[in-house]
Amino acid sequence: MDAAGEPHRISEVRITPVAFRDLPLLNTVGVHEPFALRAIVEVVTDSGLTGLGETYGDAGHLERLRAAASVLTGVDVWHVHRIAGLIRDRFAGDRVRGGHGMSGMVTGSSTADRVLSPFEVACLDIQGKAIGRPVSDLLGGAVRDRVDYSAYLFYKWAAHPGADPDPWGAALKPDEIVAQARRMVDEYGFRAIKLKGGVFRPEEEVEAIRALREAFPDHPLRIDPNGAWSVPAAIRVGAELDGVIEYLEDPTTGIDGMARVAREVSMPLATNMCVVAFDQVRPAVAADAVQVILSDHHFWGGLGRSRSLADICHTFGMGLSMHSNSHLGVSLAAMTHLAAATPHLTYACDTHWPWKDPADDVIVPGALAFSDGAVAVPTAPGLGVELDRDALARMHERYLACGIRERDDTGYMRRFEPGFDPTAPRW
Amino acid sequence: MDAAGEPHRISEVRITPVAFRDLPLLNTVGVHEPFALRAIVEVVTDSGLTGLGETYGDAGHLERLRAAASVLTGVDVWHVHRIAGLIRDRFAGDRVRGGHGMSGMVTGSSTADRVLSPFEVACLDIQGKAIGRPVSDLLGGAVRDRVDYSAYLFYKWAAHPGADPDPWGAALKPDEIVAQARRMVDEYGFRAIKLKGGVFRPEEEVEAIRALREAFPDHPLRIDPNGAWSVPAAIRVGAELDGVIEYLEDPTTGIDGMARVAREVSMPLATNMCVVAFDQVRPAVAADAVQVILSDHHFWGGLGRSRSLADICHTFGMGLSMHSNSHLGVSLAAMTHLAAATPHLTYACDTHWPWKDPADDVIVPGALAFSDGAVAVPTAPGLGVELDRDALARMHERYLACGIRERDDTGYMRRFEPGFDPTAPRW
Repeated sequence: MDAAGEPHRISEVRITPVAFRDLPLLNTVGVHEPFALRAIVEVVTDSGLTGLGETYGDAGHLERLRAAASVLTGVDVWHVHRIAGLIRDRFAGDRVRGGHGMSGMVTGSSTADRVLSPFEVACLDIQGKAIGRPVSDLLGGAVRDRVDYSAYLFYKWAAHPGADPDPWGAALKPDEIVAQARRMVDEYGFRAIKLKGGVFRPEEEVEAIRALREAFPDHPLRIDPNGAWSVPAAIRVGAELDGVIEYLEDPTTGIDGMARVAREVSMPLATNMCVVAFDQVRPAVAADAVQVILSDHHFWGGLGRSRSLADICHTFGMGLSMHSNSHLGVSLAAMTHLAAATPHLTYACDTHWPWKDPADDVIVPGALAFSDGAVAVPTAPGLGVELDRDALARMHERYLACGIRERDDTGYMRRFEPGFDPTAPRW
Repeated sequence: MDAAGEPHRISEVRITPVAFRDLPLLNTVGVHEPFALRAIVEVVTDSGLTGLGETYGDAGHLERLRAAASVLTGVDVWHVHRIAGLIRDRFAGDRVRGGHGMSGMVTGSSTADRVLSPFEVACLDIQGKAIGRPVSDLLGGAVRDRVDYSAYLFYKWAAHPGADPDPWGAALKPDEIVAQARRMVDEYGFRAIKLKGGVFRPEEEVEAIRALREAFPDHPLRIDPNGAWSVPAAIRVGAELDGVIEYLEDPTTGIDGMARVAREVSMPLATNMCVVAFDQVRPAVAADAVQVILSDHHFWGGLGRSRSLADICHTFGMGLSMHSNSHLGVSLAAMTHLAAATPHLTYACDTHWPWKDPADDVIVPGALAFSDGAVAVPTAPGLGVELDRDALARMHERYLACGIRERDDTGYMRRFEPGFDPTAPRW
């Protein structure tokens, strides 16, 4: 047996929480804090290989990652079903959902799957390195050599309160949203545009979408208010944006609410809120609540299980897109391999990438680059990205110093607007 | 890059039809002919590796296999999605379903998926050989090191007409079925028993099941009449076998008929007839027509897509078992790897293996053995089986000599019983 055929048993796991600068991006539950948290998971084998995973950095999630790591020693990285089983068993009694960096917006994801995710990705990274193949090959092979991402627009303040204005400036009016889009499209070449909504009255956000349509007549458009609207408000927006947007993302909360909206609007409804775990797929299909699922390997148990989600969507006539949180380069690499090896993924994927300071990352620069709105699929073995240990150490120091231990968009907003109430529906 | 990381591009495909002796096993559409057909697919790469696949040997299917082979030259064996896409494109206009060795019993399977299957298996065999890993590792790793199979009982004649009696003798009465089960359980150690029904009146077959229950009080039992019964007959059998069988397989034909039966009987309904392709899953789920799908990688596009089927079943609350046709060792190896790497597969798999003369196979003996009703999962690289070229040549000569080019259980039966009518429902 050659080197690849040897066992690659997990001998050590390192979990490092990091913080990176974030901008005052608005959403329906509040505003992004000055730092976003992530955890970098390094899986090390007795054969001397290391694989990388990236996930949420919230305290409760970190604690679960450490608990999971403790049960994985000695398992071969090729035995992903076994790893999933060990983690599922470890968290069988854990009924806590949410609490992993979504600030209350996503609450139904499976604990076991979101804990599994970075370990699975790291195992695939090791598998790829062991055999000299990119992770996409371990998922059935890339069907595209570039993965399209969308411009992800946010309403935002000009600066974090008390700080100097950031380079992006304020975006509170339609023309400022158009300017933000223009800059993002010019710099990255994105060919699809998503607006994070749920911040202002639906009418104002519809106006922003209309302004985007006028400025970008050929770009597919989407709006995502994170469930901020009542069913009647969502239906009203759906009527107003008939023929204007490619899908309407989480206009309201819950499978029942989404189903009621879906029956009345012309465009597909997409979700990364009411269907974020395998046990929610069946009721959603039964109710015909959603027509597009926004996959996210951080929720869905890693890349292999996200591939299964894709096949489920295809089988049940649902489209597939991809959700993003604030993330670093390890996640972007994983998302890109997954998207490349998912024939059914036909929408441009979401990414928060442009909002991150280019200097803030844990990977050695150069492996991932945007052009024409797309990232070339890495062809080096594994994920194709390399950890920059100095950067990791710096960003971990910043985590220690920043004082944030749970993402709390609502709490941060209330410092400036004490009566702020994120309870959905807001309109 | 090491040897594994090099491209392994398909440079040649060899497709060899073979025939092996079969016994006069009865089913609802007729009786097995003296020879069963299979095709052995060898995929050869420019890197000098060869992978094996096994599939149906019917003439129409052979022609499609050859057409598929012609579009795969130069593709890397790791690019399975691309291979699937090429085959799907090649057969996009092909509306012929069935015609692949099921003698009319299964007619709804996808042409592209059943053509893809042996190529996908051969590519996984090559992948495994290239990296020194068993195929189960390429499917997420084995969760069990032995795969349980069931004793697959058939009503049968004592001999093919005009031939000497075969070693199994006649099985036309309950006590003969029990004797057949006894011998099969004694020789192989099976711990679950399936009876192929649809041959005699349902009451007689219920009697056989009751006799089996008495003789084997602890063995899970199943009966499969291949859709031979009307809905009322199926409901009646279901009531009579309440608490006796673990599932009732294809008691009647069609999703609608199965749904009507499912509403009235206590046990799960299983199928490898009304849901044999991804496009049939959605209507079956909507109708709650089946509670167990019998996977079969020969129908479902190979091992990777069968893994997706497993995840679909799990997500939608359906059980998973495994179907078998008359097959040789390449298929048994593939079935065993798949079952080993499918956590959700909790029933003993079907296999026709005991009906095959041990001297009739295309693989070098020794890699696959039954003990306690199970086959140990091969741990050698790839499928873990090796082609015996002399045996392949002999069995191909027999294919050429035997004169059979399409499986035709009904035509063979009519030689002896000219008025035989297989039209379902027969009762």
